[in-house]
Amino acid sequence: MQIKDFATNVRELLAQRDIVQLRALLEEAHPADIASCIEKLENSDIWRVLSSLPNERRTDVFGYLPPNEQVRLAKSLNRRNLAEIFLHMSADERADLYNRLEPDQQAALLPGLAHAERDDIRNLASHEEGTAGAIMTSDYATLSPHLTASQAIESLRHEAPDKETIYQAYVIDRSRHLLGTVSLRDLIVASDDARVSGLMVEEVIASRVTDPQVEVVNKISKYDLIALPIIDDQDRLVGIVTYDDAMDVAEQEATEDFHRVGTVGRLEESVREASVPLLYRKRIFWLLALIFGNLLSGMGIAHYEATITAYVVLVFFLPLLIASGGNAGAQTATLMVRALATGDVQMRDWGRMIGRELAVAGLLGITMAVTVYFLGVARGGIHLAFVVALTMVMVVVVGSLIGMSLPFLLSRFRLDPATASVPLVTSIADVTGVLIYFSIATALLGVPLPASTPT
Amino acid sequence: MQIKDFATNVRELLAQRDIVQLRALLEEAHPADIASCIEKLENSDIWRVLSSLPNERRTDVFGYLPPNEQVRLAKSLNRRNLAEIFLHMSADERADLYNRLEPDQQAALLPGLAHAERDDIRNLASHEEGTAGAIMTSDYATLSPHLTASQAIESLRHEAPDKETIYQAYVIDRSRHLLGTVSLRDLIVASDDARVSGLMVEEVIASRVTDPQVEVVNKISKYDLIALPIIDDQDRLVGIVTYDDAMDVAEQEATEDFHRVGTVGRLEESVREASVPLLYRKRIFWLLALIFGNLLSGMGIAHYEATITAYVVLVFFLPLLIASGGNAGAQTATLMVRALATGDVQMRDWGRMIGRELAVAGLLGITMAVTVYFLGVARGGIHLAFVVALTMVMVVVVGSLIGMSLPFLLSRFRLDPATASVPLVTSIADVTGVLIYFSIATALLGVPLPASTPT
Repeated sequence: MQIKDFATNVRELLAQRDIVQLRALLEEAHPADIASCIEKLENSDIWRVLSSLPNERRTDVFGYLPPNEQVRLAKSLNRRNLAEIFLHMSADERADLYNRLEPDQQAALLPGLAHAERDDIRNLASHEEGTAGAIMTSDYATLSPHLTASQAIESLRHEAPDKETIYQAYVIDRSRHLLGTVSLRDLIVASDDARVSGLMVEEVIASRVTDPQVEVVNKISKYDLIALPIIDDQDRLVGIVTYDDAMDVAEQEATEDFHRVGTVGRLEESVREASVPLLYRKRIFWLLALIFGNLLSGMGIAHYEATITAYVVLVFFLPLLIASGGNAGAQTATLMVRALATGDVQMRDWGRMIGRELAVAGLLGITMAVTVYFLGVARGGIHLAFVVALTMVMVVVVGSLIGMSLPFLLSRFRLDPATASVPLVTSIADVTGVLIYFSIATALLGVPLPASTPT
Repeated sequence: MQIKDFATNVRELLAQRDIVQLRALLEEAHPADIASCIEKLENSDIWRVLSSLPNERRTDVFGYLPPNEQVRLAKSLNRRNLAEIFLHMSADERADLYNRLEPDQQAALLPGLAHAERDDIRNLASHEEGTAGAIMTSDYATLSPHLTASQAIESLRHEAPDKETIYQAYVIDRSRHLLGTVSLRDLIVASDDARVSGLMVEEVIASRVTDPQVEVVNKISKYDLIALPIIDDQDRLVGIVTYDDAMDVAEQEATEDFHRVGTVGRLEESVREASVPLLYRKRIFWLLALIFGNLLSGMGIAHYEATITAYVVLVFFLPLLIASGGNAGAQTATLMVRALATGDVQMRDWGRMIGRELAVAGLLGITMAVTVYFLGVARGGIHLAFVVALTMVMVVVVGSLIGMSLPFLLSRFRLDPATASVPLVTSIADVTGVLIYFSIATALLGVPLPASTPT
């Protein structure tokens, strides 16, 4: 499907008000493609497209719109149209939308729904953001353990239209305790009269409703699950998270970590669509904070003003040396932030990691010191070269240790390790670099006397 | 499942050579858990665990071991044991392993396999790394269009044990052209005598065998697919990529981009397990390259040595100003690299993005300039404050434009946008920052005369 041509066609037919042709064009398209081609249109045009679709597809397309677009559109719809879409949405998407609406819209919607559905929405919408509960759906298929395989398949067949997936079914007792899971694959392969209780896997992999959603993603990914059951504190099944929602969460989390490492705050919407004031707000905090960080470097430099005035050539190597410490630290911080996020490295690995980091940083520092030694000789002789080389080893080792420790420290205090952003690590490494450089220089080149300043 | 306790138990039973108890313990465990608890053991112990498992589970556990562990173990196994595992592996994992073995081991393995399987391995193993072909599997389920729903289900039931998934089946003609796809869900819900040709979706979403694997991941994620069919240049079905493999690829790709933005080279293995020499090799290139980048900053500074000697106070603001340009550039580069990777932003968006970036950067620069203006007044009077504030606006705007343009430029020349790493952007911003700062200072404060140097 050529998205671009498709989008152009849709826009042309909309402009011509040719609803018959439009309907024909939309019939073949995937809901995700329809959504991505209408999301930038005016509300009235979006609604013109949606209303030309059959009920179920209308809801599908609506579900593929970005959350903030859903809210924008929902605010412009009359109560009847919105209720119609709302009624057909999947339980998790409906709860998400509900959470983003204004209280008066929320109140207007609920009376149109059955009692059980109202409870379901209130329940799903009540979980804290970032938890398993906030991304789970209640549209899961359940089975009783005493059913036969053919009865179970028949039951799933009837439940299919309302369930997010029927490929994994959850076996529960009367009080909804999770007894096991059984896949449609196993049910189909089994003989007709095999019991669900004999087919189900009893060692269920599940998450608690309060678990962080990163853990949900990691479990689905590690065990290759179609869906992960979510249980409450009494081991009762309350929802599932499907693999496709987990993929979306994984992408969002990676993007958030990425941005945080680059000191950009959490963006709710696409970078392409973000407005100037929004981007300004998400970026200014760290830029200002880092100014004050870098002010310390300036103060360090000012402290050694006499040394600098005596040996202005030192300033030549200043950017190179302090940047090298920051760059080495940035590498280590990047490795650690990502490894902590994917679960590859855990808090308890810290001791072993720091030992290895010292070895790596030492080797890197020595290699880089040799390089700058020759530059130092060329620029200011052997004494200067020695100062520069010694500084290089030290800033690389210290920078690496900062980059290593900061993510662990943040994690230790239950803060996001990704706050150890590259610019933050670089700034801290800069300050220490300035101090290391000029204290070595002052010690080895001698404290300058006023008489030694150039005249 | 408490992984840690489980691992301890396994190790204790291994030490006691208590295979009966070990077998009982392993029976209940998920293959992924068994794999993660044995992957750090000696080859002999790994094999002791594997050989205590039934054939199919043995292969499952083997498949969950990290690729480099699979190779390490494969090298220590005798031909019969390796061939046994090899025979039961899924087509894509088998081809991956085959690709990583030495030629003599490859040659030793093939004779034990049927002709068709040999062709399949050679075929799957022949695709270039990073393409759809390299991650696809040939274990997909196919159906003829004229089957009824109940015949199709019966066919899938028989094929199930050998197929990666039966939840999505591919409808092909005699020459394997892909006619459509049908889900097991639709087959089950349909009436028994409905034809596959009437149930299948004909607007198939597929990728070419040579497409980059990132596109495969993006399609699976966007359209919420269980599996994506892969076709050759004549539209014939040659494989599928399942959602669980796509999740793994997405995680790997995000990790690689993350590392690249932090100037760490591609790591084939886990950060936790990486050796000192490996980490050294993956980090030293950019650290050395950036030294030469930062040397330019030093040269810029040296060029203005007279100005610096006259106004040493300028050095106080140097780290702060050049870091601010780098930090703003780092933010923009991070946003762009990630947005280009997820497909949120494309090459054609460049023009619009750069206009918005100018507006955001201008606002950021002015805010930061106001902040440093007061610092400038406090430190060196109104003239200095003006130099510092003007420099700040310029370095933030120029830094942001560099951070914006570099990923697009790299992408334009078919290089990885993530090469626009934060340290690289920072270094380029540093050089331009030095030049901007000292040329503004020299122009506004006046070219210093030798007489004006402090005595």
